[in-house]
Amino acid sequence: MFESVTVIGAGRAGATIAARLRERGVAVAEDGELHLLCVPDRAIAEVARSIPPGPWVAHVSGGTPLAALDPHVRRFSVHPLQTLVRGRGPEQLDGAWGAVTGETDEAREAGLEVARTLGLEPFVLADDRRAVYHAGAAIASNFLVTLHRAASDLFEEAGAPPAALVPLMRRTIENGFELTGPIARGDLETVARHREALRGTEFAALYDVLAEATRR
Amino acid sequence: MFESVTVIGAGRAGATIAARLRERGVAVAEDGELHLLCVPDRAIAEVARSIPPGPWVAHVSGGTPLAALDPHVRRFSVHPLQTLVRGRGPEQLDGAWGAVTGETDEAREAGLEVARTLGLEPFVLADDRRAVYHAGAAIASNFLVTLHRAASDLFEEAGAPPAALVPLMRRTIENGFELTGPIARGDLETVARHREALRGTEFAALYDVLAEATRR
Repeated sequence: MFESVTVIGAGRAGATIAARLRERGVAVAEDGELHLLCVPDRAIAEVARSIPPGPWVAHVSGGTPLAALDPHVRRFSVHPLQTLVRGRGPEQLDGAWGAVTGETDEAREAGLEVARTLGLEPFVLADDRRAVYHAGAAIASNFLVTLHRAASDLFEEAGAPPAALVPLMRRTIENGFELTGPIARGDLETVARHREALRGTEFAALYDVLAEATRR
Repeated sequence: MFESVTVIGAGRAGATIAARLRERGVAVAEDGELHLLCVPDRAIAEVARSIPPGPWVAHVSGGTPLAALDPHVRRFSVHPLQTLVRGRGPEQLDGAWGAVTGETDEAREAGLEVARTLGLEPFVLADDRRAVYHAGAAIASNFLVTLHRAASDLFEEAGAPPAALVPLMRRTIENGFELTGPIARGDLETVARHREALRGTEFAALYDVLAEATRR
């Protein structure tokens, strides 16, 4: 649909997306038919206001409402649901899903088309559900990092190799997140032993909240 | 080292371990040179006491101290650090690590040998560090299930497909647990939007504790 796109922002998202668009034969140019904002969330509104009316305008933020793109009306959002890192190329978009938000059929169609061009599996997300969606994404990805950090620290304290956690965590996903372990078995004594072992450490509150959520 | 093993318990661990031993040519018999307790943690002490003195006695529990094997003195523990499920065979031990605890060189050697026979990558774990170690393992595996459940619920509330979380979580591991997202960027406004979206839900406390741990 868009033969030329202006990618604004050269961070991890901007660099990855620009590289993928070029791979797909889309011209990444200064006066594109679409201006795609790949800037920090808090900069989106200001950057959007600085763009003269005319082109389509979109952002790639997970949690930012479309109103941040005011005063543009031909607008949408495409959020690649993936953790993007430097040192990987556009192939890191492959296999990821993309959340598309638009206020009109035309805008949603444009967003879906851009998502597919990027190599994403698109789904439509309502504008007023973006915050809940993005909180879920942060819990799944960012807090997964935190669990690994906590478990690694405890393994180091125990004299066990943190590398041993990786096959365990991978398999937990491969097994479709089937719950095993003491809480699944109703083994309250083992849970009590964990609590005792963590008492007074920075991980005590984390364990309690997650054990309670796991029981539910 | 052991040519025959008595596997006590036919749950997920017992069934998997017995199948692997047979694959490796070890006789799984009633009067084995090693009695390997694959029973629930709280049953270990009672089962151990019921075994007449003579054979080696070991358990496969992650958090249970060796004292649970009293009165036996030729004893050790081998804990497969893996989430085991029914419907998979002994191949689920491949690639996993195994924690070996023993009080003598001979006992540790016996435990390391059994771990290797099972296909595990063994490491030695001190008896008084088992609770910390096992708490770390539970955080990494069981609470990963809980994060996925929470994120899936939020995605369903947002009208987004929970399946979209899987490539995100896999890649988070593949990328070596590199932290991305709003907390990594210092984007406090987005974190505040998440909090607002979760206020009054069952996930508010979980988010707060994990966001705080992530910031640290």
